[in-house]
Amino acid sequence: MWTLTVQPRFNETDALGHINNTTLPVWFEQARTPIFRYFTPDLDPQNWHLIIAKIDVEFLAELYLQHEVEVRTYFSKIGNSSMTIVHEAWQQGKLCAKGHAVMVHFDHDNKGSKPIPEDIKAQLLPHLVEQ
Amino acid sequence: MWTLTVQPRFNETDALGHINNTTLPVWFEQARTPIFRYFTPDLDPQNWHLIIAKIDVEFLAELYLQHEVEVRTYFSKIGNSSMTIVHEAWQQGKLCAKGHAVMVHFDHDNKGSKPIPEDIKAQLLPHLVEQ
Amino acid sequence: MWTLTVQPRFNETDALGHINNTTLPVWFEQARTPIFRYFTPDLDPQNWHLIIAKIDVEFLAELYLQHEVEVRTYFSKIGNSSMTIVHEAWQQGKLCAKGHAVMVHFDHDNKGSKPIPEDIKAQLLPHLVEQ
Amino acid sequence: MWTLTVQPRFNETDALGHINNTTLPVWFEQARTPIFRYFTPDLDPQNWHLIIAKIDVEFLAELYLQHEVEVRTYFSKIGNSSMTIVHEAWQQGKLCAKGHAVMVHFDHDNKGSKPIPEDIKAQLLPHLVEQ
Repeated sequence: MWTLTVQPRFNETDALGHINNTTLPVWFEQARTPIFRYFTPDLDPQNWHLIIAKIDVEFLAELYLQHEVEVRTYFSKIGNSSMTIVHEAWQQGKLCAKGHAVMVHFDHDNKGSKPIPEDIKAQLLPHLVEQ
Repeated sequence: MWTLTVQPRFNETDALGHINNTTLPVWFEQARTPIFRYFTPDLDPQNWHLIIAKIDVEFLAELYLQHEVEVRTYFSKIGNSSMTIVHEAWQQGKLCAKGHAVMVHFDHDNKGSKPIPEDIKAQLLPHLVEQ
Repeated sequence: MWTLTVQPRFNETDALGHINNTTLPVWFEQARTPIFRYFTPDLDPQNWHLIIAKIDVEFLAELYLQHEVEVRTYFSKIGNSSMTIVHEAWQQGKLCAKGHAVMVHFDHDNKGSKPIPEDIKAQLLPHLVEQ
Repeated sequence: MWTLTVQPRFNETDALGHINNTTLPVWFEQARTPIFRYFTPDLDPQNWHLIIAKIDVEFLAELYLQHEVEVRTYFSKIGNSSMTIVHEAWQQGKLCAKGHAVMVHFDHDNKGSKPIPEDIKAQLLPHLVEQ
């Protein structure tokens, strides 16, 4: 499991006084950075091997500007060429949002998925949490 | 069904050269404006009656800066106090992303859901598409 | 002068109940699209010739979610290789924000500015407003 | 001087492969959090006393996804009721963007500026850098 601490930004709030729902996919994308690094260690976008197939977010409680948010990230599934990532946003000890992202290891030349290399998969597996 | 035409913005692209995935929830939220207006005709945030419970987006094809995007919005379910909204993002005649949002009619005083008024429900029903 | 009509988005508001200040540079960038098209008619980012050198925004009145915003865009200066663009955000007949962007015609190979082609400059000049 | 370390987000890049210009005002707003806290220690938006009058950003070099950004923040002027804040964005030891924000201590009831309290001003003064 990876943990990202996010300090909410004023522009991420909305007129209802809380963090806007569209902010969560942004925080969750940032929380995938350690996963991105397994496939592109220097994060060079010219050398990217992942595409995103699906995201979802369930909103469980309001998130506020005032307190840090801890985003916990782990895998619920690691397949042959794709992965399901789980993200949890915790604030003040409360699970406020939970979501998933399905990412696919992608061959931009052949425009299709390709298997996750075994050496990378071995590094990902310790972050797999059986549901 | 409602249709929103979006002109993609440069800052909505990312270093992979396409529209970033986190842009879709933003476009889809904007596409819900006609629905917001049934509950808050003047869109005054002080008088808001809806909260969001869940969103998802499936990414089917890359979206580009260069062409307008048509976001088609309709209901797949209208329940007692909640609604499931479907959003489709079309570009150049191709369905590039599809998602859902579950919204709940909410009583901010009692911090709980409340039934959608019958007169509003009657206006929403023509936008329900059986799946 | 070009005019862009913007429907404010819920996620562009903030907890103070109005449009967040960081939204204006986004709207203003979108409002430069007609200018981008003179240099890159098909808006292909692979064939981009402009870079941004400076932006500023003055906030004159609050902008609200509820009403359309009209962004008026014109030049205050067209130089040899750079241009100063003026943006005005009007809502309900009131000038609510005004800003500038300095853009430079750029040679990505030589990493330096290059003169704006005469045929493009001729098309830009009608949009120059003497201050 | 305050220092904020920012890990650039993928959605903050654009199709030119670098950080989009509209991201800088967002980082700079976040970098003002320590200043916000002098006026609203708990950051409760319901109890906000500052409004923004003007921002500018000068873009000096490209910013990349790959490396952390250090945002250095200080005052260039502390007036009776307003302050000019300077923000510098450094990456890999290079000053890549520099900007200012003018903030005004504001009385929301009377809709006008009001003097910065002396006790707050005393805390701000050590962060004033003569230009």
